Amino acid sequence: MKLLLVNPNTTASMTERLGASARAVAAPGTEIVAVNPAMGPVSIEGYYDEAFSVPGLLEEIGRGERNGCAGSIVACFDDTGLDAARTIANGPVIGICEAAMHAASLISTGFSVVTTLPRSVRIIEDLALRYGMERRCLRVRAANVAVLDLEHGGPEPREKLLREVERARDEDGAEVVVLGCAGMTDLVNWVAEQAGIQVIDGVTAAVKLLEGLVGLGFRTSKLGAYASPLAKPYTGDFARFAPGDPAGG
Amino acid sequence: MKLLLVNPNTTASMTERLGASARAVAAPGTEIVAVNPAMGPVSIEGYYDEAFSVPGLLEEIGRGERNGCAGSIVACFDDTGLDAARTIANGPVIGICEAAMHAASLISTGFSVVTTLPRSVRIIEDLALRYGMERRCLRVRAANVAVLDLEHGGPEPREKLLREVERARDEDGAEVVVLGCAGMTDLVNWVAEQAGIQVIDGVTAAVKLLEGLVGLGFRTSKLGAYASPLAKPYTGDFARFAPGDPAGG
Amino acid sequence: MKLLLVNPNTTASMTERLGASARAVAAPGTEIVAVNPAMGPVSIEGYYDEAFSVPGLLEEIGRGERNGCAGSIVACFDDTGLDAARTIANGPVIGICEAAMHAASLISTGFSVVTTLPRSVRIIEDLALRYGMERRCLRVRAANVAVLDLEHGGPEPREKLLREVERARDEDGAEVVVLGCAGMTDLVNWVAEQAGIQVIDGVTAAVKLLEGLVGLGFRTSKLGAYASPLAKPYTGDFARFAPGDPAGG
Amino acid sequence: MKLLLVNPNTTASMTERLGASARAVAAPGTEIVAVNPAMGPVSIEGYYDEAFSVPGLLEEIGRGERNGCAGSIVACFDDTGLDAARTIANGPVIGICEAAMHAASLISTGFSVVTTLPRSVRIIEDLALRYGMERRCLRVRAANVAVLDLEHGGPEPREKLLREVERARDEDGAEVVVLGCAGMTDLVNWVAEQAGIQVIDGVTAAVKLLEGLVGLGFRTSKLGAYASPLAKPYTGDFARFAPGDPAGG
Amino acid sequence: MKLLLVNPNTTASMTERLGASARAVAAPGTEIVAVNPAMGPVSIEGYYDEAFSVPGLLEEIGRGERNGCAGSIVACFDDTGLDAARTIANGPVIGICEAAMHAASLISTGFSVVTTLPRSVRIIEDLALRYGMERRCLRVRAANVAVLDLEHGGPEPREKLLREVERARDEDGAEVVVLGCAGMTDLVNWVAEQAGIQVIDGVTAAVKLLEGLVGLGFRTSKLGAYASPLAKPYTGDFARFAPGDPAGG
Amino acid sequence: MKLLLVNPNTTASMTERLGASARAVAAPGTEIVAVNPAMGPVSIEGYYDEAFSVPGLLEEIGRGERNGCAGSIVACFDDTGLDAARTIANGPVIGICEAAMHAASLISTGFSVVTTLPRSVRIIEDLALRYGMERRCLRVRAANVAVLDLEHGGPEPREKLLREVERARDEDGAEVVVLGCAGMTDLVNWVAEQAGIQVIDGVTAAVKLLEGLVGLGFRTSKLGAYASPLAKPYTGDFARFAPGDPAGG
Repeated sequence: MKLLLVNPNTTASMTERLGASARAVAAPGTEIVAVNPAMGPVSIEGYYDEAFSVPGLLEEIGRGERNGCAGSIVACFDDTGLDAARTIANGPVIGICEAAMHAASLISTGFSVVTTLPRSVRIIEDLALRYGMERRCLRVRAANVAVLDLEHGGPEPREKLLREVERARDEDGAEVVVLGCAGMTDLVNWVAEQAGIQVIDGVTAAVKLLEGLVGLGFRTSKLGAYASPLAKPYTGDFARFAPGDPAGG
Repeated sequence: MKLLLVNPNTTASMTERLGASARAVAAPGTEIVAVNPAMGPVSIEGYYDEAFSVPGLLEEIGRGERNGCAGSIVACFDDTGLDAARTIANGPVIGICEAAMHAASLISTGFSVVTTLPRSVRIIEDLALRYGMERRCLRVRAANVAVLDLEHGGPEPREKLLREVERARDEDGAEVVVLGCAGMTDLVNWVAEQAGIQVIDGVTAAVKLLEGLVGLGFRTSKLGAYASPLAKPYTGDFARFAPGDPAGG
Repeated sequence: MKLLLVNPNTTASMTERLGASARAVAAPGTEIVAVNPAMGPVSIEGYYDEAFSVPGLLEEIGRGERNGCAGSIVACFDDTGLDAARTIANGPVIGICEAAMHAASLISTGFSVVTTLPRSVRIIEDLALRYGMERRCLRVRAANVAVLDLEHGGPEPREKLLREVERARDEDGAEVVVLGCAGMTDLVNWVAEQAGIQVIDGVTAAVKLLEGLVGLGFRTSKLGAYASPLAKPYTGDFARFAPGDPAGG
Repeated sequence: MKLLLVNPNTTASMTERLGASARAVAAPGTEIVAVNPAMGPVSIEGYYDEAFSVPGLLEEIGRGERNGCAGSIVACFDDTGLDAARTIANGPVIGICEAAMHAASLISTGFSVVTTLPRSVRIIEDLALRYGMERRCLRVRAANVAVLDLEHGGPEPREKLLREVERARDEDGAEVVVLGCAGMTDLVNWVAEQAGIQVIDGVTAAVKLLEGLVGLGFRTSKLGAYASPLAKPYTGDFARFAPGDPAGG
Repeated sequence: MKLLLVNPNTTASMTERLGASARAVAAPGTEIVAVNPAMGPVSIEGYYDEAFSVPGLLEEIGRGERNGCAGSIVACFDDTGLDAARTIANGPVIGICEAAMHAASLISTGFSVVTTLPRSVRIIEDLALRYGMERRCLRVRAANVAVLDLEHGGPEPREKLLREVERARDEDGAEVVVLGCAGMTDLVNWVAEQAGIQVIDGVTAAVKLLEGLVGLGFRTSKLGAYASPLAKPYTGDFARFAPGDPAGG
Repeated sequence: MKLLLVNPNTTASMTERLGASARAVAAPGTEIVAVNPAMGPVSIEGYYDEAFSVPGLLEEIGRGERNGCAGSIVACFDDTGLDAARTIANGPVIGICEAAMHAASLISTGFSVVTTLPRSVRIIEDLALRYGMERRCLRVRAANVAVLDLEHGGPEPREKLLREVERARDEDGAEVVVLGCAGMTDLVNWVAEQAGIQVIDGVTAAVKLLEGLVGLGFRTSKLGAYASPLAKPYTGDFARFAPGDPAGG
């Protein structure tokens, strides 16, 4: 099966890293198509960046399905544009925060999330509430690291991250820890070893959950909130995104 | 004071109607600036339309503040882009669903919402949860009317709407009813009279709540989730939306 | 419009201060009638004081409406007697805790409350739950200051209050802070400046919310829990409070 | 042990009936002192009546404790004034709604409440939320019967009540039914037999729960919200209710 | 009345202590039959031990009812097998965690639980959620003491326990403290005196609640989840536990 | 990888059917070991049957791990013994109710469950609450079919099931439907086709989720509630189940 992974920011080097992580866990028959939009923010830190990542993300979701992808991953921990993506996808679409939280809840009775910046804490808390994880998610913590600092590396960001994972383990009573940023995908094993606790990365979790959903033949339900967009004109720069007849698309 | 009302869809005739409703309740010293984006969907029905209304909405929020608006209203009942708008606004920003639900909760112990299409029901239920209104909001109902059918009129849409308001009153035990679409703003009085129950329109509710918040000197807090966007490049068509130095902007 | 502000305790000097605060934010055409009951406790600290403030409060609500007040404020942070007041009021009635929490939730994603005594903490937590603010209200804190010590002044109470506001900002991650006692209305600006965070006072918030509700023509719904009291005899000292025919009253 | 039962309304014939019900289930060594206030409403139907029943109720609670009662029952299904009563009581105080819901949750996985008037439905729903019974309480139903019609009898009120109990059994899936008015205490057995379902009366449930709490030596905790009222003046008609030194009282 | 107390572990010395505690609070006419299963774990610490205590527990519940016990207590703080016990009991069955939490909620507005081992914390938190006590139960704490160390004594376990009770009082704002293990039943008075706070033991609380339920004539409802087991074969070692015709059993 | 599927009842023909369903969706490299306990009930309908299925289930879980199974499935929709199984498993363990609800929440915004008997409804509702699915799970319905009637077949049980699935679709607004009994695994495709809605079977959903978790290298966390059982004696018939040194195995 062919699965689409969309990094909703426009930093191609991060897309490559996410693709590599995804491929490392994909089943033999699974092909990972890792892309990012041509337009939008170079990293997603807060609601404003999110807003400008969604149109490009949706374009990639549509293109991916037309190119034969059987399911899609939104690879930003804010699960940016996930609901909109589901309305235009026939296959299942999964967010990496969603995937990581579901996985965490299946192997523990409580987990904490460690993300990058304080401004993302409430966003993730709100996702936890929407996903019904508000009791299992013991705390969302920020390591105070910018997304692209993870990209460009150096030892300091990972040390900060490790420190916060240890606090989650010791102060929150977390039984596993979820890393709350796609850009941390490389650090999972190192952090897990250092902190002596299982650490969950949303990118790899999403690949396996999605392989499962596609393997079962599930599609995004069109019977309610995820009904296909109604045909109507869009004006100005967005005219080309106007939904056509869903039966045709 | 000057207040911005953004209709996030691009149907100018609806913007005019919303502006007129807003002005009808505005205080003597309040000037309402009613605008809509140049790009985006002609109506917002579901998550996909929402996604493409937000960039234009945010552009209008920014322009409005630069032009001296002290506060802003997002005039779509999905409260589209509300969180993102708050990150770039210094003044308060309020959504019409939020405004209507808050108002309803102050004059009753339980209300129902009547919106347009079934696909919007879960969106509004999720907003109710986020706003803490999940116990006060007894039910979200769809009248099965398209947004632009309200615009273009004829008696049938309003009859369908009335029927559903009556059901809310009789079956849900609603003490007041909230109309769940900006485009219903004209019908409030007619429906209220016909159904013999107070009916709340989010557009007018938002104007008065916003006058209050601005009158008190409140600003959107920048201490957490609504911190100003970080300066960073945006690529492609969205390059012009890249946040600059928030201290400067 | 004429708005009633009832300080439910019998300390006239506090009533005057509350009235002054209210008038400072009232719109040009708004007249504030600030009163307190003739009977009852000199301050409200806990459930017992609350109970004996309500009959006098209700008497004032009734008199205020007969004298042409279009809406009423219950100016004790416990929102004492608010539900009962709504049953006899035709206009909207708002509590200052309710007003402050609603306002806080419109300009932030999370707030803390700082009140006077530890015995009031659970009362306010219960109000937060009733108002659907249990997720937005991060913590209710007590500054360990008696209500009338705020009245009689001296620097110590305000220093204690400031200390707790700073803890709310630093430890709770509060984006704004709500002052949890009507008697703190004078201290809002000083505390906000000292602590460098927006501070919300329920008295002023209630004035503006109420101006809005009255401006929209809303009345307390009589269709359910706030139905007018049924005509029946009251015995003993309370005979004069017996409800008459609501259609007449 | 001597237990106080306060009927918070002033209808002595109802007090007698409640006392008789209480005595019918009391343990051999338990003496039931059944009283009602001298002042206040003849029945409690909604928030306004509640407010005027509380001062007299509190007077009776205080007198009861001084006369050696080891625990107290608030015998109105709205649990009127329960929190205030606890602040002045050393012994435990229990409300009949609280007692009935606790009992129901111990012998079933879900129950419904059938009360008198629609205006009481939300009051009871709010109590269920406060007591943590919002998931176990499947529905609160009103039989549309006035409290004193239960007193003065005739077959019609009990038939209406029975009808609603049967609906609770059949439509809600209630495993037991709680009668939601003290004045229904006489009808429990008849309704249970007719409807073929266990029916719980708060008055008798409260007696047995209270015997248990007193038998265990429990007292109302004074460490938080139920701390004894602070000594302070009360003015006007309520001067005599002013709390003195709690250590003395 | 004759009441059954089942200690679900097989340590007879603990059963004796639990029986003694129960008898110390039982009413004059109450006979306590304290038993433990012949098969199963010597102490219950976590889910696995729980699983193997239930068959023996159910055997004792059945035998107890056949021998005339009018109600039953499950005397392990995990409320092990409580739901299953209710399906075969005609009389009421109560768990000691359930009993303690209900009692605590009647004399305070918030309590903490102090249990033995960290592995039991989430079990008790889940019970709190099921019982609707998740808001009243401020925190579940572990004293890091093994169950049988309480049995075999020495001063260290009780000192650890006391330390944690004091933290509950000081850090959680607990108004009362619940001891979260049947084996702590002897220590209640000592801890309460040392810590200066009311301490609740589930064993004694269950006795008095059960006396009340039986005194009221209540039975476990068979109308839903607690319906009598359907007659069917059980195979292997468990063949003798196969349910027969419930009308006969 | 080798995965264990335990049918916790002792009906071998059902075990075979469940194994066949599991194998039909398993990935090429996955071997499904389908077993059932030697002792216990022939079907699981309610809490009592559950209790007697757990010891045998746990025996199979332990044997499966010793025989090289990398993960386990509890194939009863009550998720019988799931928590206990996790304490003795090193690999992940998943319940079929849990698996189905997680899958449903990833392809819809709301689902209903259709199970066999009314007595199972509350059990499943409680699982939904524990899994955080109480808002996504719109309703749990019973088709009034016994588990073994599904086994022995005939057209009537499946017609009843179909009828209830259609009601879920039409009355609950379910976007997908979950079949709430392992024994329905054969009927999924037929029901889905007849009702025109996606239908989820927990057995197949669990296989794919488990393949994912194992593929990611996850193990059940031992840091909290799922810590390995402490070594201790078990008495009587259960002596052989006594946990040894967890480090040993």
